[in-house]
Amino acid sequence: MDRRNFIRKSTIVGATALFLPEIVKAAMPESATVAGSEWHYLAKGETVLFQGDSITDSGRSRKDEDTPNHQKQLGGGYPLFTASHILANNPEKELKIYNRGISGNKVFQLAERWEKDCIALKPDVVSILIGVNDFWHTKTGGYTGTITTYIADYNKLIADTLKALPNVKIVILEPFIIQGGNALDNTWESGFAPYRDAAKKVAKDYDLSFVPLQSVFNEALKKAPAAYWGPDGVHPSFAGAQLIAQAWSTCIQ
Amino acid sequence: MDRRNFIRKSTIVGATALFLPEIVKAAMPESATVAGSEWHYLAKGETVLFQGDSITDSGRSRKDEDTPNHQKQLGGGYPLFTASHILANNPEKELKIYNRGISGNKVFQLAERWEKDCIALKPDVVSILIGVNDFWHTKTGGYTGTITTYIADYNKLIADTLKALPNVKIVILEPFIIQGGNALDNTWESGFAPYRDAAKKVAKDYDLSFVPLQSVFNEALKKAPAAYWGPDGVHPSFAGAQLIAQAWSTCIQ
Repeated sequence: MDRRNFIRKSTIVGATALFLPEIVKAAMPESATVAGSEWHYLAKGETVLFQGDSITDSGRSRKDEDTPNHQKQLGGGYPLFTASHILANNPEKELKIYNRGISGNKVFQLAERWEKDCIALKPDVVSILIGVNDFWHTKTGGYTGTITTYIADYNKLIADTLKALPNVKIVILEPFIIQGGNALDNTWESGFAPYRDAAKKVAKDYDLSFVPLQSVFNEALKKAPAAYWGPDGVHPSFAGAQLIAQAWSTCIQ
Repeated sequence: MDRRNFIRKSTIVGATALFLPEIVKAAMPESATVAGSEWHYLAKGETVLFQGDSITDSGRSRKDEDTPNHQKQLGGGYPLFTASHILANNPEKELKIYNRGISGNKVFQLAERWEKDCIALKPDVVSILIGVNDFWHTKTGGYTGTITTYIADYNKLIADTLKALPNVKIVILEPFIIQGGNALDNTWESGFAPYRDAAKKVAKDYDLSFVPLQSVFNEALKKAPAAYWGPDGVHPSFAGAQLIAQAWSTCIQ
């Protein structure tokens, strides 16, 4: 078991700290120091998988789903931007990158297709962004799951993943809202916070990388409104997607 | 007239040099030093326009062409990646970014639509990538223009642009081929070189920013083959498009 074996390279992280974009740096001050950073340096032949809901799906093509590094398969959001950084910066590593996000998914729906859409791909890195629908669909979709469901389902998903893939590196992306977005009402701030906390606790309990996207978007909102970063408050614009890619790259390169 | 008034900021360029991706740094060693860098720092409210052929077009939607910062309007290539960097890193500047590249265009076809697709937008920064069809279509499309036509047309386009927009910053992207691509035969290496030289001379003669994309892709090919960066040798993959975006960002941020 290798989860603790993230490479902590002071030189890499030190250099990274200098070029972290302003917003990401403000949101993730610990990334600017060696001590707090969990860093994975991609090795030759590794496979990276993006998993999640519509934010990850981002209009990806279902065709050619088994072809790695395929632009249409990666969609038009943060997986594409992140993948383009990874591939441009690691051409000699023969990496394979997939996106298997599906719009509307909640944790239990990831679990239902996890064997096919995660384990079977034998990923070395799995990036997961899930949670907004676990809350949202209780308000609009008749979903009866609660925060307790989310916590139990998410813990089981991670435990099952680590059992099947003992050496996998898992990156938990904090589910987030972009305050001021037109799909949000005033119940979101307090209602969604427990889901964010739960995702963070899962990362902590299993010693996984964690990307604090709520902090990133909170910093971003000091510079421009939700219309700029994600008009409905849930789905990032391509500027918002690039922010996610930048934040993600503080963990994995 | 303000073309010489590029801001040369040793601190910014110094920091930039540290985070330039490996390939771009190898291709553009002068960008790692203060002396050789022509740097434009985007100001509040500025408009950036991407112009060119299919590499720029990159499948963009013709709908909403007048809406700036519109993902589908920007397409799926280097203008999208570059725009996402610019917008993520400059949220307080209220920038407007457009893509008006059209597949198949040669210089004279840019000129035919320049009033509508450049001057009328009153851009502060115009990025131009043009030339591959000026050569290619002489081989496959029955086009009778020569290198002399390209030079004359390109010079006139720039002169006309500077006359209409005296303060515009123009960025010339070097037209390039990706050696080993399956649309290239052995006549390209010698046949296309004069077009690259001509684009560089235009940039020099008018004191414009110049991004040496042939050098960038030559460096990239030391790490991975054309199949990775642009299978047909003309149209970059999304990894290749990200390289262009990275190189572009050494001139403008």
